[in-house]
Amino acid sequence: MPEEVARKVEKRGPGRPRVNFDARRNEIIGVATRLFAQQGFHATSVEDICRAAGIGRGVLYHYVSSKGELLLAIHERFIEPLLARAQEIAAAGDPPDVTLRKLSRELMRTIVTYRDEVTVFLHEWKALVASEEEWRGVREQRRAFEAIIRETIQRGQRQGLFKEIDPQMTAMAFLGMHNYAYQWLNPEGRLPWEEVAALFTEILIHGIVQPEHG
Amino acid sequence: MPEEVARKVEKRGPGRPRVNFDARRNEIIGVATRLFAQQGFHATSVEDICRAAGIGRGVLYHYVSSKGELLLAIHERFIEPLLARAQEIAAAGDPPDVTLRKLSRELMRTIVTYRDEVTVFLHEWKALVASEEEWRGVREQRRAFEAIIRETIQRGQRQGLFKEIDPQMTAMAFLGMHNYAYQWLNPEGRLPWEEVAALFTEILIHGIVQPEHG
Repeated sequence: MPEEVARKVEKRGPGRPRVNFDARRNEIIGVATRLFAQQGFHATSVEDICRAAGIGRGVLYHYVSSKGELLLAIHERFIEPLLARAQEIAAAGDPPDVTLRKLSRELMRTIVTYRDEVTVFLHEWKALVASEEEWRGVREQRRAFEAIIRETIQRGQRQGLFKEIDPQMTAMAFLGMHNYAYQWLNPEGRLPWEEVAALFTEILIHGIVQPEHG
Repeated sequence: MPEEVARKVEKRGPGRPRVNFDARRNEIIGVATRLFAQQGFHATSVEDICRAAGIGRGVLYHYVSSKGELLLAIHERFIEPLLARAQEIAAAGDPPDVTLRKLSRELMRTIVTYRDEVTVFLHEWKALVASEEEWRGVREQRRAFEAIIRETIQRGQRQGLFKEIDPQMTAMAFLGMHNYAYQWLNPEGRLPWEEVAALFTEILIHGIVQPEHG
């Protein structure tokens, strides 16, 4: 490296070029997310993404190797932080009903913040479940998140707080109430998402709590 | 009409040719439903449908005028009978919790029976909401079904059976629990769909019932 160039890189700091690369890559992922959410993964071509991003194929392939890599990146964007937060919440040692309220809030925040990503996740899931090794991480993260909900319900049952209702089905009821919000929840609507999440968890918790705790 | 042909048509009965037409058209709608559910409406071409149905374009256009007409037919197939049954249930004069249990059962039966149709309905909805006059019927039927759930909850509130929780949000919780089952409910799974529906309505009803009725 010529000395002058080395000095410039040093001035910008060793992290800067990477930051620029990641920022540009994130923009491209954002464009792909919108298109996949609107018209579906299969109906969206690499050309569609290039046109919407205002770049050529060469530039696109500098940032991502394939449409499949974009799809994976869309999932990593919201599942990783959601699971990390859920694990923190589960580890905090709150009573199970408090844990459920916090998980509800975190899930609804994710659905509102990453609505297009969640749309892609829910609509393309069937294809992904069946597909290759590279999707193993996402599949495991999905299962891990479901397990945190289920185990919180089971903890409440062991403590005698919740009724002995099938914990897996109760978890699916919890997930369904929240996940379906990607279809209808309007961030500018009558009720803020925090209130919707709180209302949903109240219904669910009252629905499964033992009468003596009700 | 030559006399011989007229006699043949008479023998088959006046209704038969129509029945055959409808049966063949239904088969084509079934093929399109599978493809739209698997890969999305936009990614499925008329050629894909012809190939999967083993027919040429000419034959396809004898039965349907466009891909859009197929999409509309998929919706009519399950929304019309679901709404008709829901209207009967709502008119039966049962207590509101019994009405909710019956609506739950009918909705879950529809999701299990018409899983591919429901997948298409949920995944393509955004495009349909915005689109033309021909979709007005489906939009109104969707709203009418939602209204039946909401009004049942409001009836329970007027009678003092249910708590004063936002009835629209409670209806969305009910719909979310059920509709999300298209993602995960396995008809050959551990629990039959009737039990899943019963379990979900128990959670919801206990979640909104006034303590003195609990």
